Amino acid sequence: MELLESHHCFGGVQQRWRHLSPTLNCPMTLSVFIPPAGTTPPPVLYWLSGLTCNDENFTTKAGAQRVAAELGIMLVMPDTSPRGEQVADDPAYSLGQGAGFYLNATRAPWAAHYRMYDYLHTELPALISTHFSCAERCAISGHSMGGHGALIMALKNPGRFCSVSAFAPVVNPSRVPWGQQAFRAYLGEDEQSWQAWDSCALMQQYQGEPVAMMIDQGDADNFLATQLQPAQLAEVARQRSWPLQLRIQPGYDHSYFFIASFIEDHLRFHARYLFA
Amino acid sequence: MELLESHHCFGGVQQRWRHLSPTLNCPMTLSVFIPPAGTTPPPVLYWLSGLTCNDENFTTKAGAQRVAAELGIMLVMPDTSPRGEQVADDPAYSLGQGAGFYLNATRAPWAAHYRMYDYLHTELPALISTHFSCAERCAISGHSMGGHGALIMALKNPGRFCSVSAFAPVVNPSRVPWGQQAFRAYLGEDEQSWQAWDSCALMQQYQGEPVAMMIDQGDADNFLATQLQPAQLAEVARQRSWPLQLRIQPGYDHSYFFIASFIEDHLRFHARYLFA
Repeated sequence: MELLESHHCFGGVQQRWRHLSPTLNCPMTLSVFIPPAGTTPPPVLYWLSGLTCNDENFTTKAGAQRVAAELGIMLVMPDTSPRGEQVADDPAYSLGQGAGFYLNATRAPWAAHYRMYDYLHTELPALISTHFSCAERCAISGHSMGGHGALIMALKNPGRFCSVSAFAPVVNPSRVPWGQQAFRAYLGEDEQSWQAWDSCALMQQYQGEPVAMMIDQGDADNFLATQLQPAQLAEVARQRSWPLQLRIQPGYDHSYFFIASFIEDHLRFHARYLFA
Repeated sequence: MELLESHHCFGGVQQRWRHLSPTLNCPMTLSVFIPPAGTTPPPVLYWLSGLTCNDENFTTKAGAQRVAAELGIMLVMPDTSPRGEQVADDPAYSLGQGAGFYLNATRAPWAAHYRMYDYLHTELPALISTHFSCAERCAISGHSMGGHGALIMALKNPGRFCSVSAFAPVVNPSRVPWGQQAFRAYLGEDEQSWQAWDSCALMQQYQGEPVAMMIDQGDADNFLATQLQPAQLAEVARQRSWPLQLRIQPGYDHSYFFIASFIEDHLRFHARYLFA
């Protein structure tokens, strides 16, 4: 772990690190906010960003550190894909570098590096618990493609996360253009294999205690009808009596101004479960 | 005025505009945050950014909209210099485009466009009051070179601003490398002409009721000793019994993480005078 940057921030420390990832087979950067020291090690909120982002978008634009400092929550912001000259890429902004979709690719040329699910599931939590003083309790959140990532991480791992939330998530990627393009490339043509990475399908098949879930969606979001469709997940939640809190925010779009406006609500939502 | 972007944000609206500036003789962009409608038109806080920045750095990174929305303050973020292919520039990051130093240049090739003082003093307030519903009462703040800009705007215009604040300002530009390089280029070798743009000199000569002034300075700021030296202004303030509140923030650096950590204090400071 190589420390790239460290800044005092709201009484805590905002850091940027680089490490060589054996899972992804390339160097990765990640950002971490360490809240002011409390009486016990802080729980962790993982944040997964959307298409084209890296670890810095949420770090610099969301203003999450203020409330994370107050509540005593560590924030961990990984990158959205493997990176580098040796890593396969595509001219489309929604495929390849910056667009890993938080899954394990099975098809060439992607399978050599694109294993973001394994990275998030196993390597990253081990890295964090080795290098930082933090509690085991954790939650997860994200935006757009990262909202999809947060939802599938929680839905594929019952009991692992105390709570999950998302801003404008891609809830049904196997049915919308962003997801279909990515799943076809990363997973191949067999649409049955896509279901293991689709929140709607995962919630249908979920076994165990439901995890507390909150979603914010702006109704002026340009991607709402074509890519996001949170009503699809709300319908599954209704069928399965899942405790999903879906909030439609009038006038808000897909930008970080939307995230900044409501990130405090998300942090306080997670705190209820992280400190329960 | 051409609207480039508009985003809902904390119940208000964050906008980016472009207009042709007769003062600067080029198109200019500016960002504006309009707080949620209140019972009276909101007062205005002007924010001046530092070297290399434009109107978007503070807009996206400082997290100021939350408290501005709560208090009912409009935020106006201009660019830091004239821009464009026809506008003189320099390879140094601290001279030319992105480094206007908020003065009126008198030397070629700069004098053709670099009139940021006149832009801020006359054109911008007229533009804002024409295109937006806001009160006449205003305050001003800024960071680094923009802290210098805020201080000289307030010190050259007694009674104009209800209050002034700054983060890590260049308080004595005629004595430090950033300022000397810029003043030599924009104003020429006669150091006497520099004094009209130097906060320490301006405070020495100030006539009228002192304006309320707050400065935050991180003690881990790499530029503290070479470029900033707030103690120089504090000494003048002591001599003149000026109500300067200078806060040294332990561990904080020159970044927007520092600004984000204390912008709420600055907004509440300004609100005391804007709504007095």
